[in-house]
This record gives sequence, structure tokens and C-alpha cells, in this order.
Amino acid sequence: MRAAGRHIVALCGGVGGARLAHGLAQCLAPDDLTVIVNTGDDFEHCGLSISPDLDTVLYTLAGVANREQGWGRSGETLGVMDALKALGGPDWFLLGDKDIALHLIRTEALRAGTALSAVMAQLAKALGIGPALVPMSDQPVRTMVDTADGLLAFQDYFVARRCAPVVTAIRFDGAAVARPAPAALAALQRPDLAGIVFCPSNPWLSMDPILAVPGMRDLVRGAGVPVLAVSPLIGGQAVKGPTAKIMAKLGLACTNEAIAAHYAGLIDHLVIDTGDNCTAPGLTISQRDILMRDEPDRARLAAEILDILTGSSTAPHGD
Amino acid sequence: MRAAGRHIVALCGGVGGARLAHGLAQCLAPDDLTVIVNTGDDFEHCGLSISPDLDTVLYTLAGVANREQGWGRSGETLGVMDALKALGGPDWFLLGDKDIALHLIRTEALRAGTALSAVMAQLAKALGIGPALVPMSDQPVRTMVDTADGLLAFQDYFVARRCAPVVTAIRFDGAAVARPAPAALAALQRPDLAGIVFCPSNPWLSMDPILAVPGMRDLVRGAGVPVLAVSPLIGGQAVKGPTAKIMAKLGLACTNEAIAAHYAGLIDHLVIDTGDNCTAPGLTISQRDILMRDEPDRARLAAEILDILTGSSTAPHGD
Repeated sequence: MRAAGRHIVALCGGVGGARLAHGLAQCLAPDDLTVIVNTGDDFEHCGLSISPDLDTVLYTLAGVANREQGWGRSGETLGVMDALKALGGPDWFLLGDKDIALHLIRTEALRAGTALSAVMAQLAKALGIGPALVPMSDQPVRTMVDTADGLLAFQDYFVARRCAPVVTAIRFDGAAVARPAPAALAALQRPDLAGIVFCPSNPWLSMDPILAVPGMRDLVRGAGVPVLAVSPLIGGQAVKGPTAKIMAKLGLACTNEAIAAHYAGLIDHLVIDTGDNCTAPGLTISQRDILMRDEPDRARLAAEILDILTGSSTAPHGD
Repeated sequence: MRAAGRHIVALCGGVGGARLAHGLAQCLAPDDLTVIVNTGDDFEHCGLSISPDLDTVLYTLAGVANREQGWGRSGETLGVMDALKALGGPDWFLLGDKDIALHLIRTEALRAGTALSAVMAQLAKALGIGPALVPMSDQPVRTMVDTADGLLAFQDYFVARRCAPVVTAIRFDGAAVARPAPAALAALQRPDLAGIVFCPSNPWLSMDPILAVPGMRDLVRGAGVPVLAVSPLIGGQAVKGPTAKIMAKLGLACTNEAIAAHYAGLIDHLVIDTGDNCTAPGLTISQRDILMRDEPDRARLAAEILDILTGSSTAPHGD
């Protein structure tokens, strides 16, 4: 292990991951945090380039996320959506007006040849976000779900069909020719890197697309810093989203052992809930209250994780 | 002249033209009217395919147009626009939420290879419009304005620069390879065609792009029915828009004679305001109250025009 620096890289998907990223942002100076976000869920809808996980992290870090529904912005209006329905347009994917404004800016920028990283950096700046918010790649990677009903694009599976079809496999179209976004690559190679956090996002749907970008696994393994994952499970259930369902469909027991096995060779630490247990040879297991009910919970869990990462030889607070 | 049928074809641009088209729609059975609309002002903004004149006619015929501002829909909200500004997006072209919904549907359809005619027919149906509303062409034609400040796209000249630059010439990019939209072609060749109306739109900016589509002039000339234009001028001034300014810039006197000369060889009748005069050899000049203050005015003027067109050998009401 290298002597502890200050910079933390967090890898995450949407809601749960975004909450921990927000906690980390509350604990760290802006320059000391880079959040690398899944773009496998990105899709085009109504001609708009939509990046669900990037936007959830963006809105969460900016403090403008809708806390109830777990996606989109607070105080949204549905002027466009209502008119879209009245005009016979597609209404299966709900888009708020503020959200559409962001999609319009991104869509136009991407069409003009601007990199996704650059657009997101500009939007993050406009929303007053300090830490670097980076897509895993500037090249398109699309999570595709093989199901009993055929091959489905992620949003078709997740939103339009509400995760109902039986999943047989998950693949990431475009991953083979994607490259880590330059800012993601740079963050994972920083000399002051102190640790890497796998946020409590879905390992198969949110973390795997990031790790499927060629070079990403080697960057994580080769960083020479502690790598810590927060389990997305509490009491054998997913806090949010289809993790448990996906695990069952993939023939996996919904246990922290399965999470540990999935991340084997990549992580050093697994943080599980205080009420849970996990036996995973070679991994340091820490029990914490990993449920983030509110904003103070996010900062509290983030502080505990930073204690584990940067003081890994000593017992963190509360141990 | 062919024996009078029942079908009327109206050619028009935005506001003034749309009002007369609305009047005609109030006077005629839905099957007896085809409105062919200028698409030279069409442009892409924020990645959206926007057709200002088509939409003004669409909203006007549907009774949902904003009467005060002369474009867009009534009861609009600006949820997207406000967020767009806050995110640092472009705000020079104001887009209401309902309007954006329509642009999203059109943009996606065009990207998927659907013809503009087909999208507009679907939108017109969704808005309960009876008469056929047809773009002049399904191929892109773009009105470009040569000015002392350089060559400008129409919206750049008209909206962003508020018609300030000195116009030296107007051209229609793409017109040479455009074809009349199939429904426009069919309407002008109908055996029951009774007359063609040039609505009081800007002859140089709204009507010329339509007439620049190869075949359109021959279709009008060869239709064998009375062709009537309503002057866009009252008392030497344009009722709306930059007609007078454009005429001055092009070195033309702002007179009905100049309008008559512009349409020479195409029209048989010119309808001017009751207070105006016009000497134009070979043209029948009719004086009517051509100012459309309200909806009854639209229907009244439309009825007077239909009387002139279908009873062209006898004196219409009020002559």
C-alpha cells in the first residue's frame, strides 16, 4: 500500500450509489473526490440523449434530486409530458421539464461532437457541483438484458417492462471498444489517490458496465490503494432497485458472500450492514449502518468509510 | 377556366397567412381545403427540428395558438426554458413546454425516417384538425438571408438579430433538389380544384420558398383555376412581420403594385384593403377589409374570398 494521499475515487450507478457519493462530497474537499458513473443505462428517447445514472448523481450532488421517486429533480413540472401525451407521443418514460432542459443541452452538445465528459462537466459547473463527476467512458456502452422475452435494451427491461421478464444474461454492447473517460483514467492514476469506493449500486447492472470498460479493472487493481465496496444488500434484500431479483434470476443466493465473490480480486474491504454477516476469505469485512435514510446518514456512512479507507490499520470510529 | 369544383388550396406562411387559413377552414368542409405551408424557416435548435410556420398554422387551425404573441400556443408554461437558462443553455429562441413536446415528436419521427408530411398529418389529427395541412416539401429547404453582416440562416436574421441587418438577397438552400410534398402535388392536381389562395404572408420570405420548390409554379399556373392573392399590406405598411422592411431593403416601393408585380403570371386576382388602391394590368383588383382583428374577421374575409374565387364572373358580396 502506498502512503495515504487525499483523493478518493467513487464508482457508482444511480440512486443508492448517488447517495453515498453525496455523502463523500459532504466529507471531502471538492478536489479530493472523483465520481465515476455508469453510462450503460444511457439511451435515446424522443430524440433526447438521456443518461439516467449520471443525471441522478448530478441532481443528488447538486441537492436538487427528487428524494421520493429516486430519479429526476425536485419541484418538477410536467408541461412537456402532458402535451406529449395529448399529441399521441410516447409516455412510458416520464420526463420532467427541468430534466428535459438538461437532455436538450446534452443532446445538442453530443450531436455537435462534444464529449459526454465535457458536457457533464459543464452541467455540473452550472449546478454548482464541486467534485469531478465523470462518465465511465465517452464512448457509448449499452447494457442489454437477455431475457425469456428476447434481448432488451436496459430501459425497456427496467422501466417499460418493470423488470418482469426473466433475465438470462446481461451484456454491455460497445464496451469492447470503449475507453475510460480521460478524467476517470487520470483520477485512478493520481499520485495522491487514497482509496477507491464501490458505492452500494447494483453490481451486475450498475458496477459491471463500469468494470467492463477495457482497462478499468486493471486501473482499480493497479492503483495500489485500498478498494472498498459497500454492499447493496441489507438483510438479504436490496435497499432499492432490482438487485435481489437480478441475483435470483442469475441463480445466485442473495447474500453478501455472492457480492464478495462478484468483486473478488478487485476489493479489499466489504462494508455490510450491522445486522448482517459475511464470510469471505481475504476480505476485510466491516459492519456499519449502511441504510441511508436521510442526508446526515449519507455523510455519516461516508465518514465511516473514509475512516476505514485511510486508517485501515486502525479501528474506525464505532468499531 | 374549368367548371368550378369545391376544393380550395391555400398557400401560406405564419401568422397572417395562418389566420386566413383558419378563416377558410371555418367556411369549408374539411375535405375541401388543403393548406400548403412554407418550411423555409425550419431549423434545428437544441437538437429539435422546429417548423415555425407549420406549427403556427397547426396551432391556429386547432384553436390553441397564442393570439397575443403571434407564435406558439396559448396557456404555455416555460418549465424547460427556465431550466435551460439556469443550466447555461441557449435562450435566444423561446420555446414553451407544449411546443417542445411537439418538437420532440417531430424530431424523433424525422430521425426515424418518417416524412415531414406524415408527422404533420399525425399531429394535425391529434389536435383535431380537419383540413389537410401540408408542408410545401418533405425535403429540407432553408431560407438564407444575405446581409451586410454576412449570410444568415432565417431564424438568426429574424429572431436572434431582430431583422436588423441590411438584406441584400434572399435564397432558398435545398430548393433546387426539393420536390412538392405528395399531398401538395395531389391537391393542386385534384379534378375538383376550385381555386388557389395566396394568403397575406410575406411574398419574399414566406411565399417565395413555396414557389421555389421546382414544379410548384407550374402546378399553380397549370391548375386552370382562379388564383387569388390577399395583399400583406394595408396603407403601405405590413400588418405583421418584416414585409415592409424587406421590400425597402430590396429596393421596392411598399405598394400593392409591387406585390402585384411579384406575383405576375401566377395570380388572377389581388385583394387589397378597402382604403388602398392598385393599378395592375391583367389583374382583377378587389377591395375588402383585409385586416383580421378577430376570429369572425377571419371567417368573413375567407367567405368574401371564396365568393370572388367561385363566382369570379359575378360580383361578390359587397362589390
